[in-house]
Amino acid sequence: MDFLQQDIIISTSAGKEKQQVSAAERDNGPADFSSIYSKDLLPTAGGEEMTRGFLQELVHILLTYISKSSQRSSKVLDFHHPHQLREGLDGFSLELPDQPENLEQILVDCRDTLKYGVRTGHPRFLNQLSSGLDVIGVAGEWLTSAANTNMFTYEVSPVFILMEEFLLKKMQSIVGWSADVGDGIFCPGGTISNLYSILVARYHFYPEVKTRGMGALPRLALFTSEHSHYSVKKSASVLGMGSENVFVVKCDERGKMIPADLESSIVAAKEKGLVPFYVNATAGTTVYGAFDPLNAIADICHRHTLWMHVDAAWGGGLLMSDRHRMKLQGIERAWSVTWNPHKMMGVPLQCSAILIKKRGLLQGCNEIGATYLFQTDKHYDVNYDTGDKSIQCGRHQDVFKLWLMWKAKGSQGFGSQVNKCLENAEYLYVQLQRRTDFELVFKHKPEHSNVCFWYLPPSLRGLQPGPDRDMRLHQVAPRIKGRMMEKGSLLIGYQPLGDKVNFFRCVFSNPATQQEDIDFLLEEIAQLGEDL
Amino acid sequence: MDFLQQDIIISTSAGKEKQQVSAAERDNGPADFSSIYSKDLLPTAGGEEMTRGFLQELVHILLTYISKSSQRSSKVLDFHHPHQLREGLDGFSLELPDQPENLEQILVDCRDTLKYGVRTGHPRFLNQLSSGLDVIGVAGEWLTSAANTNMFTYEVSPVFILMEEFLLKKMQSIVGWSADVGDGIFCPGGTISNLYSILVARYHFYPEVKTRGMGALPRLALFTSEHSHYSVKKSASVLGMGSENVFVVKCDERGKMIPADLESSIVAAKEKGLVPFYVNATAGTTVYGAFDPLNAIADICHRHTLWMHVDAAWGGGLLMSDRHRMKLQGIERAWSVTWNPHKMMGVPLQCSAILIKKRGLLQGCNEIGATYLFQTDKHYDVNYDTGDKSIQCGRHQDVFKLWLMWKAKGSQGFGSQVNKCLENAEYLYVQLQRRTDFELVFKHKPEHSNVCFWYLPPSLRGLQPGPDRDMRLHQVAPRIKGRMMEKGSLLIGYQPLGDKVNFFRCVFSNPATQQEDIDFLLEEIAQLGEDL
Repeated sequence: MDFLQQDIIISTSAGKEKQQVSAAERDNGPADFSSIYSKDLLPTAGGEEMTRGFLQELVHILLTYISKSSQRSSKVLDFHHPHQLREGLDGFSLELPDQPENLEQILVDCRDTLKYGVRTGHPRFLNQLSSGLDVIGVAGEWLTSAANTNMFTYEVSPVFILMEEFLLKKMQSIVGWSADVGDGIFCPGGTISNLYSILVARYHFYPEVKTRGMGALPRLALFTSEHSHYSVKKSASVLGMGSENVFVVKCDERGKMIPADLESSIVAAKEKGLVPFYVNATAGTTVYGAFDPLNAIADICHRHTLWMHVDAAWGGGLLMSDRHRMKLQGIERAWSVTWNPHKMMGVPLQCSAILIKKRGLLQGCNEIGATYLFQTDKHYDVNYDTGDKSIQCGRHQDVFKLWLMWKAKGSQGFGSQVNKCLENAEYLYVQLQRRTDFELVFKHKPEHSNVCFWYLPPSLRGLQPGPDRDMRLHQVAPRIKGRMMEKGSLLIGYQPLGDKVNFFRCVFSNPATQQEDIDFLLEEIAQLGEDL
Repeated sequence: MDFLQQDIIISTSAGKEKQQVSAAERDNGPADFSSIYSKDLLPTAGGEEMTRGFLQELVHILLTYISKSSQRSSKVLDFHHPHQLREGLDGFSLELPDQPENLEQILVDCRDTLKYGVRTGHPRFLNQLSSGLDVIGVAGEWLTSAANTNMFTYEVSPVFILMEEFLLKKMQSIVGWSADVGDGIFCPGGTISNLYSILVARYHFYPEVKTRGMGALPRLALFTSEHSHYSVKKSASVLGMGSENVFVVKCDERGKMIPADLESSIVAAKEKGLVPFYVNATAGTTVYGAFDPLNAIADICHRHTLWMHVDAAWGGGLLMSDRHRMKLQGIERAWSVTWNPHKMMGVPLQCSAILIKKRGLLQGCNEIGATYLFQTDKHYDVNYDTGDKSIQCGRHQDVFKLWLMWKAKGSQGFGSQVNKCLENAEYLYVQLQRRTDFELVFKHKPEHSNVCFWYLPPSLRGLQPGPDRDMRLHQVAPRIKGRMMEKGSLLIGYQPLGDKVNFFRCVFSNPATQQEDIDFLLEEIAQLGEDL
């Protein structure tokens, strides 16, 4: 083994035992992995040092990537079209071989994968509700994969099952529920969390649905706003309830659900013979960042005995801030809440929780009691075998990274992080108000960190508002976005919405972003679009 | 900053730039993280060296854990009851603080988390279908979390979206589908993959279900064997089809579905006015490891025009082995296949694929076309924005680790790994046949790596088979399992099944396990149970 012959033993700042770095290593550069294969690593006997060497080389690559991603001089992405990447760029082949590659090539593959990817931790990555790269969160993920276990039972996940319990209780208390209520589970993303809310609501009113199906139930009606996330409709389809039974409630110009329209929709559905049972209110809509009026919606749900769900996937993070949590007033009256720590709290993907007020519903709704996992004659308290609450069997462990970040930041640290992002949004809002080459999509100060705006190229500035200007304006954002991606200088999203033609949506959840990046954003868009 | 004052710069074997290890570091042991907080790390300006130092210290902890987990002298687990862990052991507190902890404490938290967890990579962890710890897979996970992106669009996941395409095509060709058919997606676990198969089958026959719901459909019937995974019933409940409409088909003594019973169940369901539409065949049952007769089932599905799904979550790995793939003969006739690389192929959790033969169904069934993600006026080929095929919105990137392992092992490496696990099962089977203190649950040679057996304590050996012996035998496995967990010497599962009282199920998917571990397993069980 070349690797062993070189007598390279790795040193880290951490070395609990004293370790040596050979002179050859320090003088001659990196070790040679070209004659080493995965079969030489653990669990193969004698593979320990090679395993250390390989993983430390990989960590070196990742640390370099993380450092570079935080530098403004780096590109956010190095764009290539799908056909270019598929064909193999500079020897980077996606093909899956019959014979093994050596570990030197594996490390090259890792470098190439990062090179052609998107740096979501870059201060100028503003494209998605999840952005930034939290170092403690990454540490949490690295430990999670080394621990490599499943969330079905206490037997194989004792620590993580308890961490989930502590996190859910903490989040429930922050929502404002008393200690004697509250249940929940972490799931693979906000759409699945929202799906759970409908699933459990249906079971609450019609427990027979579990065995007999929708055929035994009346035609149920669901309500959500026109600005809400598409997951309500998608879930209604998946759950066999039909997307046409989702009634879309109107919003005001700020994107907030209009309570009077909710109530008249409920009445209209009843008149058509449907049975309303579920209302989704949104705390932080995807595009505008709007907060639905939760107390007014709760009043209506109470009057009609409807399940009130709050989709706070995006807005839930504001509960951590003393300054902003009043925007979610009334959330404590919800029967269920979706809250994604992987969005505004900066936890690495994925980390999403569904909180259910009434205990026992999740278990009743989903349990099957498979005897190969959920034996009742175990020697410990099997109430901690919580896996049968889930619609999954195996479930990825998404809690440790959040738990570790909470330890490292404290509730206060999350609060400061949220405040900072909302200050960025306000700063952008103020800049946009001052400029004549940009136009806000709505005039109000942002409630969340979403800021929506058009860029007006010189050729459009003199035109009267109307269909002709709209048609041309609609093409501006996609063309700037294409140029932006080719250049790789920043990344921000755009979309049309209702009667509004394509506009940019800037969202701040990335703790790396500073005011200088916001100044850059505006200048860069203006420069990329000035000839349009 | 203490950390900077100490002038500790980290060296790795990898250092592309030359780096120094200070004398202080080598002489005085690890760096002091007690005055450093998460706010001092990146993206904070100047946080680069501290970020490197912290993550390398964490990696040191993980490497030590990985090494120790591979040693037979280590315990598999250090068991504590839930109330003990909840109360805080030796200062390990699960409580979530308001104020931040320093990074020294964070590292202690990491060590404690590993200490009280279960070493699923230990050669004697045989408790679950997913076991072992693949070093390349871990590397893949570490890169995945540093890249921290979402699978909805090519825009934010160009490389990973293409890797998913290459992997799905490769897996489809291994299943035996021709190049002009085949679609699929990676999802969070085998239960969700099976749920997709039912969802898509329903949409194939009744596309109106998406908008109109189950109320517009006849009462549909599903078929699966008594030994199949519980996910078929669970999914039928979730999808609004009702678990009572899942017909349970009888198995032979080896756990294989009896085709004649399937056909008579279909006829009986039709006579009751139900509409059969879907059959789940299992390739590798959870407990016995049985393979349903796929060709016979495919003939029946063809005759009745039913969707044939093969749940090869566990058995799919055998397709990688020239020696064992004939056990899945007929799988190419399936309309959909679940295959979990995180089981028999040893990929870290989670990695599960649903393969669908007919193209376009997944997209048609699930697409909503949200304009904030799936803009049609992008500057690249938006056919690569595959996220709308998913029932999720954000979707964790589970493909890179599999892709990297495939590069590092080649198809042949996976084949050898599978062969080794099945050799272990055969070795255990031969040992059990030889011993009088153990009894096989069924006499046939295992088809997969599952081996099911009872241990007979001396007090039971003279007893006649019958209810009395069964009652006493039923208590043996749980008591031995409890002692095993307290001792921490190995981990293996047990369960009852049908008329069989509690028996042990040993499964081999852990490449670390050797024959000496199997010898140990039998001796250990005999020793733990001899006084029962």
